[in-house]
Amino acid sequence: MSTQNPRPAGSESPLAALARLGITLPNPAKPVAAYVPTRLVGNLLYISGQIPVMNGQPIAKGLVPREVSIETAVSCARQCTLNALAAANEALKDRGGLNAVRSVVRVGAFVACEAGFADHPKIANGASELLVEVFGESGKHARAAVGAPSLPLNVPVEIEFVFEVG
Amino acid sequence: MSTQNPRPAGSESPLAALARLGITLPNPAKPVAAYVPTRLVGNLLYISGQIPVMNGQPIAKGLVPREVSIETAVSCARQCTLNALAAANEALKDRGGLNAVRSVVRVGAFVACEAGFADHPKIANGASELLVEVFGESGKHARAAVGAPSLPLNVPVEIEFVFEVG
Amino acid sequence: MSTQNPRPAGSESPLAALARLGITLPNPAKPVAAYVPTRLVGNLLYISGQIPVMNGQPIAKGLVPREVSIETAVSCARQCTLNALAAANEALKDRGGLNAVRSVVRVGAFVACEAGFADHPKIANGASELLVEVFGESGKHARAAVGAPSLPLNVPVEIEFVFEVG
Repeated sequence: MSTQNPRPAGSESPLAALARLGITLPNPAKPVAAYVPTRLVGNLLYISGQIPVMNGQPIAKGLVPREVSIETAVSCARQCTLNALAAANEALKDRGGLNAVRSVVRVGAFVACEAGFADHPKIANGASELLVEVFGESGKHARAAVGAPSLPLNVPVEIEFVFEVG
Repeated sequence: MSTQNPRPAGSESPLAALARLGITLPNPAKPVAAYVPTRLVGNLLYISGQIPVMNGQPIAKGLVPREVSIETAVSCARQCTLNALAAANEALKDRGGLNAVRSVVRVGAFVACEAGFADHPKIANGASELLVEVFGESGKHARAAVGAPSLPLNVPVEIEFVFEVG
Repeated sequence: MSTQNPRPAGSESPLAALARLGITLPNPAKPVAAYVPTRLVGNLLYISGQIPVMNGQPIAKGLVPREVSIETAVSCARQCTLNALAAANEALKDRGGLNAVRSVVRVGAFVACEAGFADHPKIANGASELLVEVFGESGKHARAAVGAPSLPLNVPVEIEFVFEVG
Protein backbone atom coordinates (compact mmCIF):
# COMPACT_ATOMS: atom_id res chain seq x y z
CA MET A 1 0.00 0.00 0.00
CA SER A 2 2.71 2.39 0.90
CA THR A 3 5.19 1.04 -1.60
CA GLN A 4 5.02 1.75 -5.27
CA ASN A 5 1.82 0.42 -6.62
CA PRO A 6 1.95 0.43 -10.41
CA ARG A 7 -0.86 -1.00 -12.45
CA PRO A 8 -0.31 -4.77 -12.73
CA ALA A 9 0.38 -6.10 -16.23
CA GLY A 10 -2.87 -7.14 -17.86
CA SER A 11 -5.06 -4.95 -15.69
CA GLU A 12 -7.67 -2.69 -17.22
CA SER A 13 -6.16 0.49 -18.70
CA PRO A 14 -7.29 3.89 -17.39
CA LEU A 15 -8.84 4.79 -20.74
CA ALA A 16 -10.74 1.49 -20.81
CA ALA A 17 -11.93 2.16 -17.27
CA LEU A 18 -13.20 5.59 -18.30
CA ALA A 19 -15.11 4.01 -21.21
CA ARG A 20 -16.60 1.33 -18.92
CA LEU A 21 -17.64 4.04 -16.45
CA GLY A 22 -19.27 6.00 -19.29
CA ILE A 23 -17.05 9.01 -18.61
CA THR A 24 -16.11 11.33 -21.46
CA LEU A 25 -13.22 13.59 -20.52
CA PRO A 26 -13.82 17.33 -20.84
CA ASN A 27 -11.79 19.28 -23.36
CA PRO A 28 -8.45 20.15 -21.79
CA ALA A 29 -8.31 23.77 -20.67
CA LYS A 30 -6.16 26.09 -22.74
CA PRO A 31 -2.86 27.08 -21.14
CA VAL A 32 -3.14 30.46 -19.49
CA ALA A 33 -0.50 33.13 -19.40
CA ALA A 34 2.67 32.28 -17.55
CA TYR A 35 1.77 28.93 -16.11
CA VAL A 36 0.76 25.66 -17.73
CA PRO A 37 -1.72 22.88 -16.93
CA THR A 38 0.98 20.26 -16.34
CA ARG A 39 4.74 19.90 -16.01
CA LEU A 40 6.56 16.62 -16.44
CA VAL A 41 9.86 16.27 -14.62
CA GLY A 42 11.47 12.85 -14.69
CA ASN A 43 8.54 10.48 -14.20
CA LEU A 44 6.46 12.91 -12.14
CA LEU A 45 3.62 14.81 -13.77
CA TYR A 46 2.70 17.87 -11.72
CA ILE A 47 -0.86 19.02 -12.49
CA SER A 48 -1.85 22.62 -11.72
CA GLY A 49 -4.59 23.32 -9.21
CA GLN A 50 -7.84 22.42 -10.94
CA ILE A 51 -11.13 24.16 -10.29
CA PRO A 52 -14.64 22.85 -10.94
CA VAL A 53 -15.31 24.46 -14.27
CA MET A 54 -17.41 22.79 -16.95
CA ASN A 55 -17.47 24.26 -20.46
CA GLY A 56 -15.50 27.19 -19.08
CA GLN A 57 -17.95 28.05 -16.30
CA PRO A 58 -17.72 27.30 -12.55
CA ILE A 59 -20.36 24.74 -11.55
CA ALA A 60 -20.65 26.27 -8.06
CA LYS A 61 -19.44 29.31 -6.13
CA GLY A 62 -19.07 30.15 -2.46
CA LEU A 63 -18.40 28.57 0.91
CA VAL A 64 -19.08 24.98 1.96
CA PRO A 65 -21.55 24.26 3.54
CA ARG A 66 -23.24 27.66 3.90
CA GLU A 67 -23.48 28.50 0.21
CA VAL A 68 -22.57 25.17 -1.41
CA SER A 69 -23.86 21.87 -0.01
CA ILE A 70 -21.52 19.03 0.90
CA GLU A 71 -23.07 17.02 -1.89
CA THR A 72 -22.41 19.71 -4.49
CA ALA A 73 -18.88 20.18 -3.17
CA VAL A 74 -18.23 16.45 -3.65
CA SER A 75 -19.36 16.85 -7.28
CA CYS A 76 -17.02 19.80 -7.57
CA ALA A 77 -14.10 17.67 -6.37
CA ARG A 78 -15.02 15.09 -8.99
CA GLN A 79 -15.15 17.79 -11.67
CA CYS A 80 -11.70 19.09 -10.64
CA THR A 81 -10.45 15.53 -11.07
CA LEU A 82 -12.03 15.11 -14.50
CA ASN A 83 -10.32 18.33 -15.54
CA ALA A 84 -7.03 16.97 -14.21
CA LEU A 85 -7.49 13.72 -16.12
CA ALA A 86 -8.18 15.71 -19.28
CA ALA A 87 -5.04 17.78 -18.72
CA ALA A 88 -2.92 14.67 -18.11
CA ASN A 89 -4.40 12.89 -21.12
CA GLU A 90 -3.49 15.86 -23.31
CA ALA A 91 -0.02 16.21 -21.78
CA LEU A 92 0.75 12.55 -22.41
CA LYS A 93 -0.90 12.27 -25.83
CA ASP A 94 2.33 11.15 -27.50
CA ARG A 95 2.67 8.31 -24.98
CA GLY A 96 -0.85 6.90 -25.07
CA GLY A 97 -2.55 9.57 -22.98
CA LEU A 98 -3.79 8.50 -19.55
CA ASN A 99 -2.66 4.94 -20.23
CA ALA A 100 0.88 6.22 -19.60
CA VAL A 101 -0.04 7.00 -15.98
CA ARG A 102 1.53 4.42 -13.70
CA SER A 103 0.05 5.65 -10.42
CA VAL A 104 -1.36 8.61 -8.57
CA VAL A 105 1.15 9.98 -6.06
CA ARG A 106 -0.40 12.96 -4.32
CA VAL A 107 -3.69 14.88 -4.11
CA GLY A 108 -3.81 18.32 -2.47
CA ALA A 109 -7.39 19.46 -1.88
CA PHE A 110 -8.52 22.93 -0.76
CA VAL A 111 -12.11 23.54 0.37
CA ALA A 112 -13.53 27.07 0.73
CA CYS A 113 -15.08 27.14 4.21
CA GLU A 114 -15.28 28.89 7.54
CA ALA A 115 -14.03 28.24 11.06
CA GLY A 116 -15.49 25.09 12.59
CA PHE A 117 -15.93 23.19 9.32
CA ALA A 118 -14.69 19.63 9.77
CA ASP A 119 -15.72 17.66 6.68
CA HIS A 120 -12.86 18.41 4.28
CA PRO A 121 -12.13 14.68 3.87
CA LYS A 122 -15.68 14.01 2.72
CA ILE A 123 -15.25 16.59 -0.05
CA ALA A 124 -11.82 15.33 -1.06
CA ASN A 125 -13.21 11.81 -1.38
CA GLY A 126 -14.97 13.03 -4.53
CA ALA A 127 -11.52 13.20 -6.08
CA SER A 128 -9.96 10.17 -4.41
CA GLU A 129 -12.78 7.80 -5.27
CA LEU A 130 -12.82 8.75 -8.93
CA LEU A 131 -9.06 8.17 -9.11
CA VAL A 132 -9.48 4.67 -7.73
CA GLU A 133 -12.37 3.98 -10.14
CA VAL A 134 -10.11 4.94 -13.05
CA PHE A 135 -6.70 3.63 -11.94
CA GLY A 136 -7.61 0.82 -9.52
CA GLU A 137 -5.21 0.15 -6.65
CA SER A 138 -2.54 2.28 -8.33
CA GLY A 139 -4.92 5.22 -8.04
CA LYS A 140 -4.49 5.27 -4.25
CA HIS A 141 -2.47 8.28 -3.20
CA ALA A 142 -1.11 10.38 -0.38
CA ARG A 143 -3.47 13.27 0.33
CA ALA A 144 -3.81 16.52 2.18
CA ALA A 145 -7.22 18.19 2.57
CA VAL A 146 -7.45 21.63 4.15
CA GLY A 147 -9.64 24.71 4.28
CA ALA A 148 -9.24 28.10 2.57
CA PRO A 149 -11.26 31.29 3.08
CA SER A 150 -11.70 31.60 -0.70
CA LEU A 151 -10.41 30.16 -3.95
CA PRO A 152 -9.94 31.49 -7.51
CA LEU A 153 -13.21 32.61 -9.18
CA ASN A 154 -14.83 32.04 -5.76
CA VAL A 155 -15.17 28.30 -6.44
CA PRO A 156 -15.67 25.98 -3.44
CA VAL A 157 -12.93 23.45 -4.27
CA GLU A 158 -9.46 23.47 -5.84
CA ILE A 159 -7.32 20.34 -6.21
CA GLU A 160 -3.77 19.78 -7.40
CA PHE A 161 -2.20 16.44 -8.29
CA VAL A 162 1.06 14.59 -8.83
CA PHE A 163 0.89 11.54 -11.11
CA GLU A 164 3.63 8.99 -11.77
CA VAL A 165 4.21 8.31 -15.45
CA GLY A 166 5.20 4.76 -16.38
CA MET B 1 22.64 23.10 3.75
CA SER B 2 20.84 23.41 0.51
CA THR B 3 22.51 20.45 -1.09
CA GLN B 4 21.59 16.89 -0.35
CA ASN B 5 22.28 16.17 3.25
CA PRO B 6 22.07 12.42 3.83
CA ARG B 7 22.89 10.93 7.19
CA PRO B 8 26.65 10.49 7.40
CA ALA B 9 27.90 6.91 7.63
CA GLY B 10 28.28 5.92 11.26
CA SER B 11 25.88 8.53 12.57
CA GLU B 12 23.09 7.57 14.95
CA SER B 13 20.17 5.89 13.22
CA PRO B 14 16.70 7.45 13.45
CA LEU B 15 15.35 4.47 15.41
CA ALA B 16 18.28 4.73 17.86
CA ALA B 17 17.59 8.46 18.20
CA LEU B 18 13.94 7.75 19.01
CA ALA B 19 15.01 5.26 21.69
CA ARG B 20 17.49 7.73 23.17
CA LEU B 21 14.77 10.41 23.21
CA GLY B 22 12.42 7.99 24.96
CA ILE B 23 9.89 8.25 22.15
CA THR B 24 7.62 5.32 21.37
CA LEU B 25 5.95 5.70 18.00
CA PRO B 26 2.16 5.57 17.97
CA ASN B 27 0.45 2.75 16.13
CA PRO B 28 0.25 3.65 12.45
CA ALA B 29 -3.22 4.76 11.45
CA LYS B 30 -5.23 2.35 9.35
CA PRO B 31 -5.56 3.25 5.69
CA VAL B 32 -8.84 5.01 5.03
CA ALA B 33 -10.97 4.61 1.97
CA ALA B 34 -9.49 5.78 -1.27
CA TYR B 35 -6.28 7.32 -0.07
CA VAL B 36 -3.32 5.88 1.80
CA PRO B 37 -0.99 7.12 4.54
CA THR B 38 2.08 7.13 2.31
CA ARG B 39 3.12 6.70 -1.31
CA LEU B 40 6.65 5.86 -2.39
CA VAL B 41 7.67 6.98 -5.87
CA GLY B 42 11.30 6.53 -6.78
CA ASN B 43 13.15 7.57 -3.62
CA LEU B 44 10.49 10.04 -2.45
CA LEU B 45 8.05 9.02 0.25
CA TYR B 46 4.99 11.27 0.19
CA ILE B 47 3.20 11.23 3.56
CA SER B 48 -0.48 12.24 3.72
CA GLY B 49 -1.51 15.26 5.75
CA GLN B 50 -1.30 14.19 9.39
CA ILE B 51 -3.55 15.52 12.10
CA PRO B 52 -2.91 15.55 15.86
CA VAL B 53 -4.78 12.43 16.85
CA MET B 54 -3.65 10.18 19.69
CA ASN B 55 -5.29 6.79 20.16
CA GLY B 56 -7.75 7.80 17.46
CA GLN B 57 -8.89 11.03 19.14
CA PRO B 58 -7.91 14.64 18.33
CA ILE B 59 -5.81 16.09 21.16
CA ALA B 60 -7.18 19.58 20.50
CA LYS B 61 -9.85 21.30 18.40
CA GLY B 62 -10.42 24.84 17.21
CA LEU B 63 -8.58 27.97 16.19
CA VAL B 64 -5.11 29.10 17.29
CA PRO B 65 -4.77 31.10 19.51
CA ARG B 66 -8.40 31.85 20.46
CA GLU B 67 -9.43 28.29 21.25
CA VAL B 68 -6.09 26.48 21.26
CA SER B 69 -3.00 28.05 22.85
CA ILE B 70 0.24 28.43 20.93
CA GLU B 71 1.83 25.98 23.33
CA THR B 72 -0.84 23.34 22.69
CA ALA B 73 -0.62 23.94 18.95
CA VAL B 74 3.13 23.28 19.09
CA SER B 75 2.36 19.96 20.82
CA CYS B 76 -0.14 19.25 18.06
CA ALA B 77 2.52 19.82 15.41
CA ARG B 78 4.76 17.40 17.26
CA GLN B 79 1.95 14.82 17.42
CA CYS B 80 1.33 15.19 13.67
CA THR B 81 5.02 14.46 13.17
CA LEU B 82 4.98 11.41 15.44
CA ASN B 83 2.06 10.10 13.40
CA ALA B 84 4.05 10.74 10.22
CA LEU B 85 7.06 8.91 11.61
CA ALA B 86 4.81 5.97 12.53
CA ALA B 87 3.35 5.94 9.02
CA ALA B 88 6.82 6.06 7.43
CA ASN B 89 8.16 3.37 9.75
CA GLU B 90 5.29 1.10 8.76
CA ALA B 91 5.61 1.91 5.06
CA LEU B 92 9.31 1.08 5.09
CA LYS B 93 9.12 -1.95 7.38
CA ASP B 94 10.70 -4.24 4.79
CA ARG B 95 13.67 -1.89 4.48
CA GLY B 96 14.45 -1.30 8.16
CA GLY B 97 11.65 1.13 8.93
CA LEU B 98 12.65 4.71 9.65
CA ASN B 99 16.32 3.77 9.33
CA ALA B 100 15.70 3.71 5.58
CA VAL B 101 14.97 7.44 5.62
CA ARG B 102 17.89 9.33 4.14
CA SER B 103 16.61 12.86 4.71
CA VAL B 104 13.54 15.02 5.18
CA VAL B 105 12.76 17.00 2.03
CA ARG B 106 9.64 19.06 2.67
CA VAL B 107 7.21 19.94 5.43
CA GLY B 108 3.89 21.62 4.63
CA ALA B 109 2.16 22.93 7.76
CA PHE B 110 -1.39 24.30 8.00
CA VAL B 111 -2.56 26.12 11.12
CA ALA B 112 -6.26 26.81 11.80
CA CYS B 113 -6.42 30.53 12.61
CA GLU B 114 -8.01 33.87 11.85
CA ALA B 115 -6.96 37.06 10.08
CA GLY B 116 -4.05 38.79 11.76
CA PHE B 117 -2.43 35.64 13.17
CA ALA B 118 1.32 35.79 12.53
CA ASP B 119 2.92 32.94 14.46
CA HIS B 120 2.56 30.04 12.04
CA PRO B 121 6.34 29.43 12.09
CA LYS B 122 6.31 28.99 15.86
CA ILE B 123 3.71 26.23 15.51
CA ALA B 124 5.50 24.54 12.62
CA ASN B 125 8.69 24.45 14.66
CA GLY B 126 7.02 21.74 16.75
CA ALA B 127 7.38 19.53 13.68
CA SER B 128 10.72 20.81 12.41
CA GLU B 129 12.51 20.49 15.71
CA LEU B 130 11.39 16.92 16.28
CA LEU B 131 12.59 15.99 12.80
CA VAL B 132 16.04 17.37 13.57
CA GLU B 133 16.08 15.55 16.94
CA VAL B 134 15.38 12.29 15.13
CA PHE B 135 17.32 12.69 11.88
CA GLY B 136 20.04 15.19 12.81
CA GLU B 137 21.28 17.51 10.05
CA SER B 138 19.57 15.38 7.41
CA GLY B 139 16.28 16.19 9.12
CA LYS B 140 16.51 19.81 7.98
CA HIS B 141 13.94 20.48 5.28
CA ALA B 142 12.27 23.02 3.05
CA ARG B 143 9.06 24.22 4.67
CA ALA B 144 5.89 26.16 4.05
CA ALA B 145 3.67 27.23 6.96
CA VAL B 146 0.33 28.89 6.26
CA GLY B 147 -3.09 29.50 7.79
CA ALA B 148 -6.43 27.80 7.11
CA PRO B 149 -9.90 28.74 8.39
CA SER B 150 -10.47 25.14 9.49
CA LEU B 151 -9.00 21.67 9.12
CA PRO B 152 -10.40 18.12 9.10
CA LEU B 153 -12.16 17.15 12.37
CA ASN B 154 -11.71 20.79 13.39
CA VAL B 155 -8.12 20.13 14.53
CA PRO B 156 -5.78 23.14 14.85
CA VAL B 157 -2.85 21.74 12.83
CA GLU B 158 -2.34 19.53 9.77
CA ILE B 159 1.08 18.69 8.36
CA GLU B 160 2.19 16.82 5.26
CA PHE B 161 5.71 15.58 4.53
CA VAL B 162 8.07 14.37 1.81
CA PHE B 163 10.93 12.13 2.97
CA GLU B 164 13.87 10.90 0.92
CA VAL B 165 14.46 7.16 1.19
CA GLY B 166 18.05 5.97 1.07
CA MET C 1 4.21 22.61 -23.00
CA SER C 2 3.39 19.82 -20.65
CA THR C 3 6.49 17.83 -21.39
CA GLN C 4 9.88 18.68 -20.02
CA ASN C 5 10.88 22.06 -21.24
CA PRO C 6 14.56 22.61 -20.49
CA ARG C 7 16.33 25.72 -21.63
CA PRO C 8 17.44 25.18 -25.23
CA ALA C 9 21.19 25.12 -25.83
CA GLY C 10 22.40 28.60 -26.71
CA SER C 11 19.49 30.38 -25.08
CA GLU C 12 20.07 33.25 -22.69
CA SER C 13 21.12 32.10 -19.24
CA PRO C 14 18.99 33.02 -16.20
CA LEU C 15 21.78 35.17 -14.75
CA ALA C 16 22.16 36.99 -18.08
CA ALA C 17 18.40 37.53 -18.17
CA LEU C 18 18.49 39.03 -14.67
CA ALA C 19 21.26 41.41 -15.76
CA ARG C 20 19.33 42.42 -18.89
CA LEU C 21 16.23 43.03 -16.76
CA GLY C 22 18.29 45.17 -14.39
CA ILE C 23 17.44 42.91 -11.45
CA THR C 24 19.89 42.54 -8.59
CA LEU C 25 19.05 39.59 -6.40
CA PRO C 26 18.51 40.28 -2.71
CA ASN C 27 20.91 38.78 -0.20
CA PRO C 28 19.80 35.23 0.52
CA ALA C 29 18.02 34.95 3.86
CA LYS C 30 19.91 33.24 6.65
CA PRO C 31 18.75 29.74 7.50
CA VAL C 32 16.42 29.78 10.47
CA ALA C 33 16.25 27.21 13.19
CA ALA C 34 15.26 23.73 12.14
CA TYR C 35 14.38 24.30 8.54
CA VAL C 36 16.41 25.52 5.59
CA PRO C 37 15.75 27.78 2.60
CA THR C 38 16.17 24.97 0.06
CA ARG C 39 16.58 21.21 -0.18
CA LEU C 40 17.97 19.45 -3.22
CA VAL C 41 16.85 15.87 -3.74
CA GLY C 42 17.89 14.23 -6.98
CA ASN C 43 17.37 16.98 -9.55
CA LEU C 44 14.55 18.70 -7.68
CA LEU C 45 15.25 21.82 -5.65
CA TYR C 46 12.49 22.40 -3.09
CA ILE C 47 12.39 26.04 -2.00
CA SER C 48 10.76 26.94 1.33
CA GLY C 49 7.71 29.18 1.39
CA GLN C 50 8.99 32.69 0.67
CA ILE C 51 7.43 35.82 2.10
CA PRO C 52 7.70 39.38 0.75
CA VAL C 53 10.51 40.67 2.94
CA MET C 54 13.05 43.20 1.70
CA ASN C 55 16.12 43.92 3.81
CA GLY C 56 14.57 41.78 6.52
CA GLN C 57 11.27 43.71 6.71
CA PRO C 58 7.86 42.77 5.27
CA ILE C 59 6.95 45.14 2.43
CA ALA C 60 3.22 44.82 3.25
CA LYS C 61 0.97 43.32 5.90
CA GLY C 62 -2.67 42.31 6.05
CA LEU C 63 -5.49 41.02 3.90
CA VAL C 64 -5.94 41.43 0.14
CA PRO C 65 -7.73 43.57 -1.00
CA ARG C 66 -9.04 45.22 2.20
CA GLU C 67 -5.69 46.15 3.70
CA VAL C 68 -3.32 45.47 0.80
CA SER C 69 -4.24 46.44 -2.77
CA ILE C 70 -4.14 43.93 -5.60
CA GLU C 71 -1.33 45.94 -7.14
CA THR C 72 0.75 45.79 -3.97
CA ALA C 73 0.02 42.10 -3.58
CA VAL C 74 1.33 41.48 -7.10
CA SER C 75 4.54 43.26 -6.08
CA CYS C 76 4.67 41.05 -3.01
CA ALA C 77 4.44 37.94 -5.17
CA ARG C 78 7.31 39.28 -7.25
CA GLN C 79 9.35 39.93 -4.09
CA CYS C 80 8.70 36.38 -2.85
CA THR C 81 10.03 35.16 -6.19
CA LEU C 82 13.13 37.35 -6.02
CA ASN C 83 13.81 35.90 -2.58
CA ALA C 84 13.37 32.40 -4.00
CA LEU C 85 15.78 33.16 -6.85
CA ALA C 86 18.31 34.43 -4.32
CA ALA C 87 17.91 31.28 -2.23
CA ALA C 88 18.32 29.04 -5.29
CA ASN C 89 21.31 31.02 -6.54
CA GLU C 90 22.99 30.57 -3.15
CA ALA C 91 22.07 26.89 -2.91
CA LEU C 92 23.53 26.19 -6.34
CA LYS C 93 26.58 28.43 -6.07
CA ASP C 94 28.99 25.53 -6.66
CA ARG C 95 27.18 24.68 -9.90
CA GLY C 96 26.93 28.13 -11.46
CA GLY C 97 24.08 29.49 -9.34
CA LEU C 98 20.78 30.07 -11.10
CA ASN C 99 22.34 29.01 -14.40
CA ALA C 100 22.10 25.45 -13.09
CA VAL C 101 18.29 25.70 -13.06
CA ARG C 102 16.87 23.70 -15.93
CA SER C 103 13.20 24.57 -15.44
CA VAL C 104 10.57 25.66 -12.97
CA VAL C 105 8.32 22.76 -11.98
CA ARG C 106 5.78 24.02 -9.47
CA VAL C 107 4.63 27.23 -7.81
CA GLY C 108 2.34 27.12 -4.75
CA ALA C 109 0.91 30.56 -3.93
CA PHE C 110 -1.05 31.52 -0.81
CA VAL C 111 -2.88 34.84 -0.61
CA ALA C 112 -4.18 36.22 2.71
CA CYS C 113 -7.81 37.12 2.03
CA GLU C 114 -11.40 36.74 3.11
CA ALA C 115 -14.45 34.85 1.86
CA GLY C 116 -15.55 35.96 -1.60
CA PHE C 117 -12.11 36.96 -2.86
CA ALA C 118 -11.63 35.61 -6.37
CA ASP C 119 -8.44 37.15 -7.77
CA HIS C 120 -5.78 34.79 -6.42
CA PRO C 121 -4.50 34.07 -9.96
CA LYS C 122 -3.89 37.78 -10.59
CA ILE C 123 -1.65 37.89 -7.50
CA ALA C 124 0.17 34.68 -8.36
CA ASN C 125 0.92 36.06 -11.83
CA GLY C 126 3.42 38.38 -10.12
CA ALA C 127 5.50 35.27 -9.48
CA SER C 128 4.76 33.39 -12.68
CA GLU C 129 5.54 36.27 -14.99
CA LEU C 130 8.90 36.99 -13.36
CA LEU C 131 9.84 33.32 -13.69
CA VAL C 132 9.12 33.43 -17.42
CA GLU C 133 11.07 36.69 -17.77
CA VAL C 134 14.08 35.02 -16.17
CA PHE C 135 13.87 31.44 -17.49
CA GLY C 136 11.95 31.84 -20.74
CA GLU C 137 9.73 28.95 -21.82
CA SER C 138 11.40 26.67 -19.28
CA GLY C 139 10.11 29.01 -16.58
CA LYS C 140 6.52 27.90 -17.24
CA HIS C 141 5.27 25.76 -14.37
CA ALA C 142 2.36 23.95 -12.79
CA ARG C 143 0.70 26.19 -10.23
CA ALA C 144 -1.79 26.24 -7.40
CA ALA C 145 -3.08 29.55 -6.02
CA VAL C 146 -5.34 29.55 -2.97
CA GLY C 147 -6.45 31.73 -0.07
CA ALA C 148 -5.41 31.69 3.58
CA PRO C 149 -6.87 33.64 6.53
CA SER C 150 -3.39 34.77 7.52
CA LEU C 151 0.27 34.06 6.81
CA PRO C 152 3.52 34.28 8.81
CA LEU C 153 4.32 37.81 10.05
CA ASN C 154 0.88 38.76 8.76
CA VAL C 155 2.21 39.17 5.21
CA PRO C 156 -0.31 39.07 2.33
CA VAL C 157 1.47 36.49 0.15
CA GLU C 158 3.58 33.36 0.64
CA ILE C 159 4.93 31.29 -2.24
CA GLU C 160 6.81 28.00 -2.38
CA PHE C 161 8.60 26.58 -5.41
CA VAL C 162 10.07 23.43 -6.94
CA PHE C 163 12.84 23.96 -9.50
CA GLU C 164 14.46 21.35 -11.73
CA VAL C 165 18.25 21.45 -11.67
CA GLY C 166 20.01 20.57 -14.92
